[in-house]
Amino acid sequence: MTPLILSKFGIWTFDTVGWISLIAATTNAFNGALLARRPDHYKNFTVVGIIILAYAGGIGGGVLRDVLLNNIPSPLMNPWYLIACFLAAAAALAVDYYSAQRFKDGLFQFMTAFTLPWYAIVGAQAALAAHLGYFAAVVIGIIATTAGRWIIDVACNVTPKQLVRGEHFVAAAALTGVVYLVCTAVLGWDVVISTAVGVAVGFGYRMLSLAFGWEEWEPWEPAGAKAEEKPRKRLGEGLHAEFTAKVDE
Amino acid sequence: MTPLILSKFGIWTFDTVGWISLIAATTNAFNGALLARRPDHYKNFTVVGIIILAYAGGIGGGVLRDVLLNNIPSPLMNPWYLIACFLAAAAALAVDYYSAQRFKDGLFQFMTAFTLPWYAIVGAQAALAAHLGYFAAVVIGIIATTAGRWIIDVACNVTPKQLVRGEHFVAAAALTGVVYLVCTAVLGWDVVISTAVGVAVGFGYRMLSLAFGWEEWEPWEPAGAKAEEKPRKRLGEGLHAEFTAKVDE
Amino acid sequence: MTPLILSKFGIWTFDTVGWISLIAATTNAFNGALLARRPDHYKNFTVVGIIILAYAGGIGGGVLRDVLLNNIPSPLMNPWYLIACFLAAAAALAVDYYSAQRFKDGLFQFMTAFTLPWYAIVGAQAALAAHLGYFAAVVIGIIATTAGRWIIDVACNVTPKQLVRGEHFVAAAALTGVVYLVCTAVLGWDVVISTAVGVAVGFGYRMLSLAFGWEEWEPWEPAGAKAEEKPRKRLGEGLHAEFTAKVDE
Repeated sequence: MTPLILSKFGIWTFDTVGWISLIAATTNAFNGALLARRPDHYKNFTVVGIIILAYAGGIGGGVLRDVLLNNIPSPLMNPWYLIACFLAAAAALAVDYYSAQRFKDGLFQFMTAFTLPWYAIVGAQAALAAHLGYFAAVVIGIIATTAGRWIIDVACNVTPKQLVRGEHFVAAAALTGVVYLVCTAVLGWDVVISTAVGVAVGFGYRMLSLAFGWEEWEPWEPAGAKAEEKPRKRLGEGLHAEFTAKVDE
Repeated sequence: MTPLILSKFGIWTFDTVGWISLIAATTNAFNGALLARRPDHYKNFTVVGIIILAYAGGIGGGVLRDVLLNNIPSPLMNPWYLIACFLAAAAALAVDYYSAQRFKDGLFQFMTAFTLPWYAIVGAQAALAAHLGYFAAVVIGIIATTAGRWIIDVACNVTPKQLVRGEHFVAAAALTGVVYLVCTAVLGWDVVISTAVGVAVGFGYRMLSLAFGWEEWEPWEPAGAKAEEKPRKRLGEGLHAEFTAKVDE
Repeated sequence: MTPLILSKFGIWTFDTVGWISLIAATTNAFNGALLARRPDHYKNFTVVGIIILAYAGGIGGGVLRDVLLNNIPSPLMNPWYLIACFLAAAAALAVDYYSAQRFKDGLFQFMTAFTLPWYAIVGAQAALAAHLGYFAAVVIGIIATTAGRWIIDVACNVTPKQLVRGEHFVAAAALTGVVYLVCTAVLGWDVVISTAVGVAVGFGYRMLSLAFGWEEWEPWEPAGAKAEEKPRKRLGEGLHAEFTAKVDE
C-alpha cells in the first residue's frame, strides 16, 4: 500500500533516498519540539505534549499526504520514523535546556530549509504515482511539506504560518514541485536529476527569502480591521529570528 | 476510485451535474476568501493565505467526504476544481478591493445557500454508494457541506459556525439529506426528482432562516459561564450581515 | 473493509465486545457534551453544536483510527454508534439542566477511565491487523483514545488536554497498549486475557493518577515565557474537578 515511488526509493532498506526522508522527518520533529518551547507557542506543555507536537511536525505532513492518496501512512508502517521522531523530541529538550547551545539553531534552520523541498518532491511523486494530475501533485507536495506546522500552530492557538508572512514558506514548496514537474514531465529529465534541480531551486529560494526577508504579499487592510503593525524582517534577520524567542509570527 | 455516483454524474465530462458541483466548489472558495478578509476572521493573511483558505472552503468538505469514504478525493483528481478555486480567490480579492461592489454580496450569499443542499445530496449519494446506512449518509452530507467552514474558522481562531447560532446552517444540510433519502428510499422517486426536491427544501429552509433570523436553540447559560449577549438577527438582517463586516459570529 | 479484529469482535451482532465498544463511544459522547457546557470550554454553543461536539468525542477517535488504517470508519458503518451518541448528547443536556444530578459526574468520570484502555486496545489490535508494527500499534491506540478530545479542545479554543498536565491521560493509553502487546506478542497469552490485563493496568493507572494527582512532567519555563501558575491537584481533587466547573485545564 506504500506509494510505488516510496518503495522504489527503498524506505524499508534505507538506501540514500530513504535516509534523506528519515532525516527530513527527524529534523522536522526536532523543530516541532523547539517550536513548542518558543514563547509565542508555549502553553505550559508537558514532556508528553512536546513529544506529541514533535510527531505532528515530523510525520504530520507525510501522514496526511498518504491519507489523501488513500494509502496507509508510510511513516506509520516504518517504525524508524516513530523512533527517530521520539529521539528528536528528547534532543530538542536537551538543546533547549543547554540554551548556550542555541547556536545550533542556525544549523537546524538550514536543515529545515533543506528538507522543505524534499517533502515537496516526494509528495509530488506520490501524487503522480496515484494518477493525480500535475496541479494536484503540487498541492499534495505543499500539504506534505507544511501540514505538520499547521497542526502545531492550531494546537498552540497561533495563526498557521502558511497564512501569514513567512518568507515564502509555502511558495518555496510550490516552486519546488513546479520545477520538479517541468524537469520530469516537460523536459523529460531523469528522476534523480530532476529531484536535484528541484531541491536546489526550492532550497535556494527559501534561503534567499530568509536572508533577504522576502515575504508574501499581505494585501491592504480590510475596512474595519484593527491594524497590526508587523515590520518586515530583512537581511538574515528572518534566518535568525525563527528560534530566538522574539518572534511574534 | 471516484465514488460511482460521481463518475455517473460525469464530473470528468462536465455534464449538467458536473458543472453544478464545480460551481458549488467555486462559490464556496470565493466565499472562503471573502471570509478571510472579514474583520472577525482577518489575521493579517497574505495573498497565499487567502488562496489556501479559499481552497479549504471550496474543496475541504469534498476532500474530507472522500477520505471518510476511503476514496482518493475527487476534487484532487479533477484539475478544474483546483484551477477554479484559485481563480475564485483572485476574484474575491478583486471584489474586496472594489468595495463598492459589495452589492454583489447578496448574490453570493444566495449562491452559497443554493450550493449548500447540493453538497449535502452529493455527500449522501456517495455515502450510500459506499454501502453506509441512511444515518451515516446524512452525517456525510453535513460534513461535505460544512467541513470547509470548520477548517477556516479554526485557522482564524473563531468558534466554528456549526457550533454557534448560524441560521440553521447545519440543520439545512441535515434536512436536505433527510428529504432526499425519503424521496429516493422511502417513496422510490427518481434520483433527479429527489435531488430537485431536496435542493428546493434545503435551499428554501436556509433562505427562510436567513430572512427571518431563525436560529438554533442556544440552551441556558451553564453555571459559572460569563454571559455573552448576542441579540437575535431578524427579517433579512442575517442575509445582509454575513458580509457587511459588522458580524461577531 | 472493517478491520478484521472488529468484525471478529462482532460489532454488527453486538456480542460482549461489541457492546463494550458501543458503551465506550456513548460514554465519550456524553462526556463530550458535558465538556461543551463546562465554563472553560463554553462558547455559546447551540444544541446543534453540543450534538456535534458529542459526536466528535464519541466517534472522533475511532473514525481517525480507521482513516489512518485506510478503512471506511466503522463508527459510520454501524448506525447504532450514531444513534447512541445522539441520545448521549440529549442525556448530557438533561443532566446539565438538573444540576443537582451532578453527583452522576463521578460515575461518568469512572466510566471514561474504564473506556480509555478499551479504545487503546481496539486501536492496537486494528493496527496489528493492518500489518503495522508494535510502535505504530501503540500510537494508533493513543490516537483512537484521545483524538476526540483534541478536536473538541481545538474547536473550543482550549489547549488540547494531551499537551498539558492531565493526570496521565495519554500515558495511560500508551501503557495499556504496551501491556497488551507484551501479553499477546511477547508472552503469547490469549487475546481475551491480554485484553483484561491491559484494561486492568490502564484503568488502574488512570484512576491512581486521578486520585493522587499524578501528572505529566512539565519542564522548566522557557526563557521569555510568561509563567502561569497551576497548582498540582492531589488526592481525589482531580477526580472531582473534571466536571465541577472550577477547572482551568
